[in-house]
Amino acid sequence: MSIERMIEDMGMAAKDASRQLRRMERDNKDAALELMADRLVQREKEIIEENSKDLSSAKEKGLTSAMIDRLTLDDKTIRSMAEGLKEVAALPDPVGEVAGMRKRPNGLVVGRVRIPLGVIGFIYESRPNVTVDAAGLCLKSGNSVILKGGSEAINSNLILAEILREALEETGLPQKAIQVIPTTDREAVGILLSLEDHVDIIIPRGGEGLIRFVTENSRIPVLKHYKGVCHVYVDEFADLKMASEICFNAKVQRPGVCNAMETMLVHDKIARDFLPSMVKRFQDAGVTIRGCPGTLAIIPEAEAAEESDWPAEFLDLILAVKIVSDMNEALDHIEKYGSNHTEAIVTKDYDRSRRFLAEVDSSVVLVNASTRFNDGNQLGLGAEIGINTSKLHAFGPMGLEELTTTKFIVYGDGQVRS
Amino acid sequence: MSIERMIEDMGMAAKDASRQLRRMERDNKDAALELMADRLVQREKEIIEENSKDLSSAKEKGLTSAMIDRLTLDDKTIRSMAEGLKEVAALPDPVGEVAGMRKRPNGLVVGRVRIPLGVIGFIYESRPNVTVDAAGLCLKSGNSVILKGGSEAINSNLILAEILREALEETGLPQKAIQVIPTTDREAVGILLSLEDHVDIIIPRGGEGLIRFVTENSRIPVLKHYKGVCHVYVDEFADLKMASEICFNAKVQRPGVCNAMETMLVHDKIARDFLPSMVKRFQDAGVTIRGCPGTLAIIPEAEAAEESDWPAEFLDLILAVKIVSDMNEALDHIEKYGSNHTEAIVTKDYDRSRRFLAEVDSSVVLVNASTRFNDGNQLGLGAEIGINTSKLHAFGPMGLEELTTTKFIVYGDGQVRS
Repeated sequence: MSIERMIEDMGMAAKDASRQLRRMERDNKDAALELMADRLVQREKEIIEENSKDLSSAKEKGLTSAMIDRLTLDDKTIRSMAEGLKEVAALPDPVGEVAGMRKRPNGLVVGRVRIPLGVIGFIYESRPNVTVDAAGLCLKSGNSVILKGGSEAINSNLILAEILREALEETGLPQKAIQVIPTTDREAVGILLSLEDHVDIIIPRGGEGLIRFVTENSRIPVLKHYKGVCHVYVDEFADLKMASEICFNAKVQRPGVCNAMETMLVHDKIARDFLPSMVKRFQDAGVTIRGCPGTLAIIPEAEAAEESDWPAEFLDLILAVKIVSDMNEALDHIEKYGSNHTEAIVTKDYDRSRRFLAEVDSSVVLVNASTRFNDGNQLGLGAEIGINTSKLHAFGPMGLEELTTTKFIVYGDGQVRS
Repeated sequence: MSIERMIEDMGMAAKDASRQLRRMERDNKDAALELMADRLVQREKEIIEENSKDLSSAKEKGLTSAMIDRLTLDDKTIRSMAEGLKEVAALPDPVGEVAGMRKRPNGLVVGRVRIPLGVIGFIYESRPNVTVDAAGLCLKSGNSVILKGGSEAINSNLILAEILREALEETGLPQKAIQVIPTTDREAVGILLSLEDHVDIIIPRGGEGLIRFVTENSRIPVLKHYKGVCHVYVDEFADLKMASEICFNAKVQRPGVCNAMETMLVHDKIARDFLPSMVKRFQDAGVTIRGCPGTLAIIPEAEAAEESDWPAEFLDLILAVKIVSDMNEALDHIEKYGSNHTEAIVTKDYDRSRRFLAEVDSSVVLVNASTRFNDGNQLGLGAEIGINTSKLHAFGPMGLEELTTTKFIVYGDGQVRS
């Protein structure tokens, strides 16, 4: 069978399964999630065995130790995947909730009921635990999912999917609700992106290159973020001790993630008070500072920032620092170089806090808190399948509800339109 | 200046304007809408003059009388556009509404505030009144809009946009919030669809060909519907008199629109009672019936339906009729041939009404009411910019709220992540 045909068949099967999933009650779905969790732990040995095949070829291919680390499954990561599924089972089911039911002047009763999106195409890179996390969230929200993981994780992904599918079958859910594309052929992604009749939405998760490829080649709507160039603006009226804690946390606590701070904007009036001790703290933690000319005047040993540093997502212990003469300059800088991801202000001034919240066009805007809080769990969504920095459908972290949509339901008693 | 450069400049100007619009209060926007309405009426003569240029070339090109009719602006249509703007001004402003504000365990207060999408690219065909309607809805919801109308309406669209822009300027709003692409060059659409850095969303309105072209060529998310293949299912337990009223209204009241019924599904057990008088009523109104074999057995003079009639959007006084042996067959038929647009059941049975509402995967699902109610005004959205049959962002009719999204706002007092 050709690869086109195989993936199209998977698309059709996913659509069929999604029709069955629509009718499933929460109890059905939770039972499947619970059983999946148990089965993962029970079949730990098999998973580790298949994973070790991936690890050997990864080592042969000379992947970096960071990549091998992300690829590795052991009893701890397997247990954590299983716990993740149980947590998703415990979350409320978004499907079926009815909002805004109202009577129209002609007596029609109109409301909106929350429904699954249908079929989700999920494209990701090396971590095999994403297979389980994504499958769990899609199932709970009533969606079928077609998963295309990194080629280096193919054996791990296939055994995980097999275990999940068996749990689906045992609990009476459609097996084809969770499918992993069983090939490392790169063509497969392009074919998946063309299945507009069977797949409702594509979610890519990975590096900027993958996301751009998916966006440019998809006929199906894509929810994604390219990068997180997150800013903290330390205002003239900031509590400087608080600012230091927030900036340090935003940069250092986990520098390799999309909600870490990449550029710190500092108001001119407090720069001389704030920067020396702040930069010392950063440098002690191994952070390289790339400063604007004003920063260099205060911190002569810092590197000079280049234009390319302002829109950069370093994902590393590097920080661009710019002194701004007023709040307008900070807002203009964020507008020009930001990525609509996450921005924070540190200030004690009421009007400035309100202005920052109103004018910054990012999916999460914070006052006096670290950018690291842009995360589905931290913001109360319960779980997260990704972050969307396009304005469509869901702006920001996406949890279970963001994997659904609403349709109108109308109760009449014979109304016709005149 | 090249056309690429011109349209890219329009995109950048629209983005700038959208940043200013974000800060506008409802009063500002409503004042502009009211003034636009007044100016349209005051400058009626100029509009009719420019419109007459379009009408002359349309006649030269031999456009059909229906197309010329859609293109024509007179004092009545101009007044109706003006009233439309005043109605939009009177609607509540969706922007700024905060939902779900909650305190997290660490004391962060997290909510979602409704914000404009940003810049909307609106691509449509012949009716120049769409220029005014779309501009009004985009402005009220805080969005900039770039309008690309049909080439046959170019002079009308340009004078309308000029009048709207003057009203923006007089009321202190950014002029570039409303821009009409001032060329009939077909290349323009392709360029607009590539401006992913400046345009947040594309809404096409027109025939299936236009919509497919836009969807296949856009790098920007598209909200659209290809077609409306709407069904009414007359159940075994229908009130047959009510069914006759609903089906007649759904087919005949305005056959050329997307929410008109295209296929009527009739339960076998009531077909002999229902079809003869129903078909007579249709035939008296000029409706051609294309029936399945079962239908032909009861109505021998009907045409035989072909396979291509089931997924067809006739937009005309033609109706496909199929007899189904049970509700499953009706649901399967809708799943296979429907367009996720609008479906109705006529029944007195409680369980069947619930099942139809739950299982039909359409943007509007009705019990005992005409499909013609799938319309933003009729469903209580106040106004409508289009209908979306993809599941993303907004499924079904889109009003002002559907032209917005939400961002997270977070109030902290120094929280950092551990």
